[in-house]
Amino acid sequence: MPPLPQKTAWDFMPAGWTCTDEANRADAASWRAPDGFEASTQLEHARLGTITKQMERVAEREPHLSAAQVRDEVAAGRMVIPANKNHLKTSLDPMAIGRASKTKVNANMGASPVSSSIDEEVDKLRWAEKWGADTVMDLSTGGDLDATRVAMTTHSTVPIGTVPIYSMIIGRKIEDLDEEIILDGIRAQAEQGVDYMTVHAGILKSHLPLVKKRLIGLVSRGGSLLAKWMLVHQRENPMNTSWEKICGVLREHDVTFSIGDGCRPGGLADATDELQLAELVELGKLTERAWRCGVQVMVEGPGHVPLDQIEFNMKAQRHLCHGAPFYVLGPLVTDMFPGYDHITSCIGATSAGYHGASMLCYVTPKEHLGLPKKDDVKQGCVAYKIAAHAADVALGIPGTRDNDDELTKARAALNWQKHFDLSFDPDLARAYHDEDLDVDTDFCAMCGHDWCSVRISKEISEWDSGLAEGFDRGRTVKSAALNEEQRRILEQRGNLSPAEIHKLAAKAKGKLVPADEDGRARCHSDHVGDDEAAKSVAPKEAAALANGDRLVQLDTSEAHGLSKADSVI
Amino acid sequence: MPPLPQKTAWDFMPAGWTCTDEANRADAASWRAPDGFEASTQLEHARLGTITKQMERVAEREPHLSAAQVRDEVAAGRMVIPANKNHLKTSLDPMAIGRASKTKVNANMGASPVSSSIDEEVDKLRWAEKWGADTVMDLSTGGDLDATRVAMTTHSTVPIGTVPIYSMIIGRKIEDLDEEIILDGIRAQAEQGVDYMTVHAGILKSHLPLVKKRLIGLVSRGGSLLAKWMLVHQRENPMNTSWEKICGVLREHDVTFSIGDGCRPGGLADATDELQLAELVELGKLTERAWRCGVQVMVEGPGHVPLDQIEFNMKAQRHLCHGAPFYVLGPLVTDMFPGYDHITSCIGATSAGYHGASMLCYVTPKEHLGLPKKDDVKQGCVAYKIAAHAADVALGIPGTRDNDDELTKARAALNWQKHFDLSFDPDLARAYHDEDLDVDTDFCAMCGHDWCSVRISKEISEWDSGLAEGFDRGRTVKSAALNEEQRRILEQRGNLSPAEIHKLAAKAKGKLVPADEDGRARCHSDHVGDDEAAKSVAPKEAAALANGDRLVQLDTSEAHGLSKADSVI
Repeated sequence: MPPLPQKTAWDFMPAGWTCTDEANRADAASWRAPDGFEASTQLEHARLGTITKQMERVAEREPHLSAAQVRDEVAAGRMVIPANKNHLKTSLDPMAIGRASKTKVNANMGASPVSSSIDEEVDKLRWAEKWGADTVMDLSTGGDLDATRVAMTTHSTVPIGTVPIYSMIIGRKIEDLDEEIILDGIRAQAEQGVDYMTVHAGILKSHLPLVKKRLIGLVSRGGSLLAKWMLVHQRENPMNTSWEKICGVLREHDVTFSIGDGCRPGGLADATDELQLAELVELGKLTERAWRCGVQVMVEGPGHVPLDQIEFNMKAQRHLCHGAPFYVLGPLVTDMFPGYDHITSCIGATSAGYHGASMLCYVTPKEHLGLPKKDDVKQGCVAYKIAAHAADVALGIPGTRDNDDELTKARAALNWQKHFDLSFDPDLARAYHDEDLDVDTDFCAMCGHDWCSVRISKEISEWDSGLAEGFDRGRTVKSAALNEEQRRILEQRGNLSPAEIHKLAAKAKGKLVPADEDGRARCHSDHVGDDEAAKSVAPKEAAALANGDRLVQLDTSEAHGLSKADSVI
Repeated sequence: MPPLPQKTAWDFMPAGWTCTDEANRADAASWRAPDGFEASTQLEHARLGTITKQMERVAEREPHLSAAQVRDEVAAGRMVIPANKNHLKTSLDPMAIGRASKTKVNANMGASPVSSSIDEEVDKLRWAEKWGADTVMDLSTGGDLDATRVAMTTHSTVPIGTVPIYSMIIGRKIEDLDEEIILDGIRAQAEQGVDYMTVHAGILKSHLPLVKKRLIGLVSRGGSLLAKWMLVHQRENPMNTSWEKICGVLREHDVTFSIGDGCRPGGLADATDELQLAELVELGKLTERAWRCGVQVMVEGPGHVPLDQIEFNMKAQRHLCHGAPFYVLGPLVTDMFPGYDHITSCIGATSAGYHGASMLCYVTPKEHLGLPKKDDVKQGCVAYKIAAHAADVALGIPGTRDNDDELTKARAALNWQKHFDLSFDPDLARAYHDEDLDVDTDFCAMCGHDWCSVRISKEISEWDSGLAEGFDRGRTVKSAALNEEQRRILEQRGNLSPAEIHKLAAKAKGKLVPADEDGRARCHSDHVGDDEAAKSVAPKEAAALANGDRLVQLDTSEAHGLSKADSVI
């Protein structure tokens, strides 16, 4: 686990709170709230020592944490529970983001002026939930923004985030933005049930001359719009000057801040530069100010960072923002692979997660190129579930690796169906397997029978996994017919003809690996690993190994002839 | 850069060589070869201080290195040039693998008994070369192994690697393997021009009881076969006992060792365990023994490792194998995503490259499921080019990031064609872009016109990149018709109907973003970023920024109406 920051939210208490025991500041018992104080946010409840229903639910969903631990992390500012009171009334299932909890994944979506519709976006929302998104941001800039947003908060069980400045300038020039419009816009979205909001209050007028030192300037939409506002008016960023008023609105509904990084780098060349670091210092100050208003805070982080700079970036944020959960976009670790940026960025995201980021904002294959389609949303989600899970495994969060180990056991037992059932995308895994071989036997098409190291290993010694209840399979089984999704996967891969896919789907007579006259698959040689040789080896081998291990030859005659005991799972 | 190991190949010189200056052991000038010695391998030439043609070629291909540096790295054992003398006579273009050179990528292929043919494999070879594989391993275990291997070495410009034990047991039981068969098999492949060979000499009889402590035992094919041999004969690994004789054959043709890790973990649960480390110690001893025979050495590394253990693994190998180039498979950082293991493993590969691995063996989406098809080979290559490149950028190898920065400049200038030309897979990037928008204009379908931060940034200030010669574009251009590859990409994505793809391919009248009555695209609002507002802002903005930057409004009327100056690139 990365080290703890020196300060916490307990060091930035609102005016009116009295500390009765300075030596134990980080303890609810040491504080007295102002007279008549009523907690509104999860942070405020935690400061009072209260365990809310939402904290209990979080502990239920993350069994390695107790509800009291969740409360303490929230009170310290190191964890947020983005749960708008209005969204709680409808469909939200509370979750938490922070270093003590599992690493989370956010999926961005939203209609653009060029493409998409409300139905399409709700469809993408469901799809993102299916593929494991822990939160969803509605970044719509086109269509009916209000209707889309309401549809999202009505339908989603996961927290919904937005960037409220987008809706503030619909039908309005950015220059015409003022404090009233800002507060009205944020209030309207808070009432609609938005759980967290990105506000780009960290980019300051004094930062703007640094923009021209960059190769690609500002790539944050909010950041670039506010930069334009500041240039036109020659005044400070209105999100920053109105910060405490914005906090007031957010506090009322318990909307969590996601303090936006308007100066995030748009290429490796601009990463960790003077501008990004200048803004990060300001993000720390905004964190302190929000905590003094009782509002929960996440901080957003960079989009393009070379691998060697990621750990440093995480450390700088942890120090300057006092452990407020870091929510990073990617980052991409190279710029030159457009079309594959779900991969370039999930490499950076894994490293970021391992070094302390709490939520990873996905990047899809369409990044830099166009609006993601449904399959892009899936590809982005999967890449980021990989990143989040790999980071959690590396961090040693208890229980995280259990499923990996179960799958390894199924693999060792050559139990294909269990292998696929335990995998993240069973349809895909099954389709890829069946593309070459439509029976589940003791090898795969990668090596064939004689060369399957797992099969040979099983021959050498039987070990716990293969014998454990529920793993051993023991005989060849005909797999079930392809389902629609699997058929579609194979169609899109384009390796098999429609007729071959149909044959596979129907599990018709013809087998992909035809048997020869002796009833053996043609991949089975007469020399390596045949039954007689294996049996003759057994006694020697038993003597060789310490604890009475046996050589177990799988019943490969069944495996290839398929004549005696075919069965369909 | 990771630190240097304490010892080098200069500490493991063959018998008969005399050091004349112990204080400067790591210098060819300090050594006298035995009388009548004739150098055969690149290592031996380097020990004599000779710069070979192959070293010169390597320096030509990697401009950050001089030929003398290449020689010195080869002499130290930290770099290999896998270049069989027979392959040099035909098609090989020499390359180098080592910490001082760029990180390399290997693509595995080869017919299995279940699937594929010689033509298919040669086709995959060409394909892997196209997608950037630096070496290719022919791991055929089916079909005509000799013919496939000869076809590979005849056609490939990249080094070819093999695992010679595979061909030794064709038509023979593994138990019948003996020293004569081993040496004959290796000699035959060396004469065929194989550039490097994996030999699993590190797994010892004493290691076998450790296998049963694992969840998935041995997953290396060579390792499991040799384990079976040892169990049957109750004798030591014949590859190990015959090591010096094998070295003799390899030295003659200058075949490079890739010392195989027969005990590589097959799941996270088995990573960095007693067995893997016991074998690693032996791999170090084999490295020393090979260097004493004048043979070049790489060492192979683990396939499944949690992210937090990768740096340690690299350090252990560097120390124990004295800096011999580390050639790693993946490693996968989670087990539960079969079908996506090109991604799970390229995360680990990037980290491995950054922490010191010199060559990354790709993993394709079909890993654990079946034999890779052509598109799987591409997906594996691309993921690993990303990993290798990201590692090189993070290591700061001079010049590595140039292309990323050029692409960032093209992106900043909204020069789409240049953006795609500079990208790794231009066809894919273009197809994804054109899926939504068939003109190259000053925004993309992700945000649309009004929300394009890059366009707004360009409006705020003009910076060097956008003005640099060759980047500025200045007007909207109609992109060229789709080529076959791009059409195929869109077909497989399945988002557009065949008719829509055809329309796009033909660039027929209909546009995906139709213009409204005023000739503007419907994604262009009347309020944000319109020309008049932008122009009125210009003087203020010019005053605001220090060095006389100007607000430059792109000619967006052209961008949307497309009426005046359409052109086709």
